[in-house]
Amino acid sequence: MTQLTYEQPLNEKTRSYLRLEYLAQQLEANLAHDHQHRCFYPLFSLCELTERCDYRSEIIKDIDKQLISLSKWLSLPHIDADKADDYILRLKLARERLLSCNRPGQTLKQNRFLSALRQRFNMPGACCNFDLPQLHYWLAKPWEIRQQEYAAWSTTFDCLLTPIKLLLELTRQTTQYHQATAEAGFYQGDSPQALSLIRVKIDAQQGCYPTISGHKNRYAIHFVQFEQQKHSDQAIEFQLATCG
Amino acid sequence: MTQLTYEQPLNEKTRSYLRLEYLAQQLEANLAHDHQHRCFYPLFSLCELTERCDYRSEIIKDIDKQLISLSKWLSLPHIDADKADDYILRLKLARERLLSCNRPGQTLKQNRFLSALRQRFNMPGACCNFDLPQLHYWLAKPWEIRQQEYAAWSTTFDCLLTPIKLLLELTRQTTQYHQATAEAGFYQGDSPQALSLIRVKIDAQQGCYPTISGHKNRYAIHFVQFEQQKHSDQAIEFQLATCG
Repeated sequence: MTQLTYEQPLNEKTRSYLRLEYLAQQLEANLAHDHQHRCFYPLFSLCELTERCDYRSEIIKDIDKQLISLSKWLSLPHIDADKADDYILRLKLARERLLSCNRPGQTLKQNRFLSALRQRFNMPGACCNFDLPQLHYWLAKPWEIRQQEYAAWSTTFDCLLTPIKLLLELTRQTTQYHQATAEAGFYQGDSPQALSLIRVKIDAQQGCYPTISGHKNRYAIHFVQFEQQKHSDQAIEFQLATCG
Repeated sequence: MTQLTYEQPLNEKTRSYLRLEYLAQQLEANLAHDHQHRCFYPLFSLCELTERCDYRSEIIKDIDKQLISLSKWLSLPHIDADKADDYILRLKLARERLLSCNRPGQTLKQNRFLSALRQRFNMPGACCNFDLPQLHYWLAKPWEIRQQEYAAWSTTFDCLLTPIKLLLELTRQTTQYHQATAEAGFYQGDSPQALSLIRVKIDAQQGCYPTISGHKNRYAIHFVQFEQQKHSDQAIEFQLATCG
């Protein structure tokens, strides 16, 4: 049985964080295995997103909020003080690095090889030998060399991606999953406190995926049967976590 | 020593053919190995290119030209008649299939799963879990199942891609490589008959790649040092083939 987890952000900030976290995972996957020219997609996506928006000040604010919460928790009983201390340390370190780093992606802009590739990459079938002979040359380098170069390029986003991963980890830990049923494929809920993330865990065998919508205090989940591509009218068992 | 082959089309038609051939190779690579969501890039590129342009009539014309040439060759001495007969057979078969097929890519347009994905795929980092829960579901299917589905989608382009591969194979066989030297990193040539494709084979150890330009009867090759990203001033040894 494969349990699949689906997540839906309920605000713009969490939406951005999830997107950046997803790209961070893609960078890591491309460091672990040789995906040829395909490794450039997440790299260029990160370049584009960080050019459109400087996430740094928002992240610093979020880190500060989390540091305050964690300090408060430390004074409560039944709190895993070691774990909280560990998070405080990691957040402080990430904060320091983020404050001292240049705007992520800027150094890659000056890389002529990457710039030439990036201009072409969104055109259909545009990584041909004749479009980009330099890419053809680069791809013939030994994987170990390419891996090192890719690691160097990816690292320029670390100061941004490390705190985002930490913040999302903390968000996901604000609550636990509980069992829920979507009667006739539909479920809705509300919360007195503002929510940032809805998580749905469901067995793939049920043959459907959730489409989740919502905003702050309210959310709705429709389950769609994958093969038929239509809303399910069945009672769907799933696990639900609503994170603050 | 790694020999790398670079190709440059000298007309628009060959440019299109090379692009489609490149995408055909990508489809095959995605059938051989699980590249996760990355497998959709060449598929959607093919959808886009075939929507912009219906290549079929041009290909039929080219097949007919080649069939005439091959019949003429058959009457010449020292010709490998079996090989020519084999090409004639394959071209005729490809011609028949191309005439009887619908415009490639049309059936995929009606696939709701693919349409939803395609709309999102060119946005940066837009294959997130929350953008496309159906993709998240699909990627959790066993690879064998996904492979079958991908094969079915890819096959819809076969009637177009098979003759293109054949035509390019014949183009590449019109001539043989000969040794050449680019003094101070530069080489130029001309040909009384119109050329369609320039091919350069060079040892990767030389640390440079060619940028080729030209049109019909004239072409120029500049060699660029990869690491320095500047034109080489060295004498570069390479192999050259100019295909009609």
